Amino acid sequence: MQRVLGLSEIRIAGFGGQGVILAAAVIGKAAAIFQDGHATMTQSFGPEARGGSSSAQVILSGEPILYPYITRPDILVVMSQEAYTRFSPELKPGGILITEQELVRVDSIPPGVRAYGVPATRLAEDLGRKVVLNIVMVGFFGAVAKLLEPQALRQAVADSVPPAMQKLNLLAFDKGFEYGSELIARKGLENSVEPVLLESEA
Amino acid sequence: MQRVLGLSEIRIAGFGGQGVILAAAVIGKAAAIFQDGHATMTQSFGPEARGGSSSAQVILSGEPILYPYITRPDILVVMSQEAYTRFSPELKPGGILITEQELVRVDSIPPGVRAYGVPATRLAEDLGRKVVLNIVMVGFFGAVAKLLEPQALRQAVADSVPPAMQKLNLLAFDKGFEYGSELIARKGLENSVEPVLLESEA
Repeated sequence: MQRVLGLSEIRIAGFGGQGVILAAAVIGKAAAIFQDGHATMTQSFGPEARGGSSSAQVILSGEPILYPYITRPDILVVMSQEAYTRFSPELKPGGILITEQELVRVDSIPPGVRAYGVPATRLAEDLGRKVVLNIVMVGFFGAVAKLLEPQALRQAVADSVPPAMQKLNLLAFDKGFEYGSELIARKGLENSVEPVLLESEA
Repeated sequence: MQRVLGLSEIRIAGFGGQGVILAAAVIGKAAAIFQDGHATMTQSFGPEARGGSSSAQVILSGEPILYPYITRPDILVVMSQEAYTRFSPELKPGGILITEQELVRVDSIPPGVRAYGVPATRLAEDLGRKVVLNIVMVGFFGAVAKLLEPQALRQAVADSVPPAMQKLNLLAFDKGFEYGSELIARKGLENSVEPVLLESEA
């Protein structure tokens, strides 16, 4: 069981129903149960949740975690435009932005940030169940962030869904992981997302 | 929408598969989305999670919550003997202990603590689906802790499960709530749980 090194802060955000919390729990479990590490997952419910947005914070560490709040994520995974707009300014320099590319239009990428997009909803629909888009995102995250062992993430997926849903979710994970691996093989560790200038700026 | 007053710290613990996290999320949502309050839900994944135990912390407050970790819960909801043994010493004096009474044997109740038990697994089985025992616990919590509006909790239940599961989960909530209301009506706010002396102490 490989040790989790250092401390990584991850925010996952989107809208309600996309399975933000499950995606966060899978990443936390992969680190703490299927690798040798610790993790916390924190969700804040506040007025913004009334608007249907959903966000979770995950911290992965080699050591027990004393303070579970993050201010500047190393990795931001966004599945809605609103989540991108709200949270991308917080991303740490040198961080990684991961987007659901058909739901998020990236208008600028801060210097030093790498950005990767995946059509997770469409890939989930190819499997016949749009609802697994969150697990496609987790697979893609695994391939591009390279923070956790793919096998640990895969086990955490299986561990986090009911038995009848395991096969579907593992397929979703593999689909996202393969998409990310191919992207990295093709483009290297550069940005795969081109920022789109807003009309008012053009 | 009634305002959430003060600050309440709640720990919910049991073993994996009992739906600890969903129960915690329902309570958080009830406060922050269906009442006028704020809530955080924190889950720590660590070596103990490898043994199959599961625990979540919820903080409810009238104000935004700056530090989401709790040390001494006001309310402890336990669904396994291990969770009871581990967490009951942390309960605040004057706090409330809520147990799944057929899974937890209470051997002592700290002075000033009120303890209430519910056969949640059996009540869930009466509905044909043991899996909703967590929502029976939430209903019972609603009736005995009286911290949140029953209607806000009920809406949070409906909001937190897939449409096809709403009816079953609302029945489970009502069953737990009724059991708790009858218990309070019959016994008042005294302990409903009698501590059982361990044989070695008798």
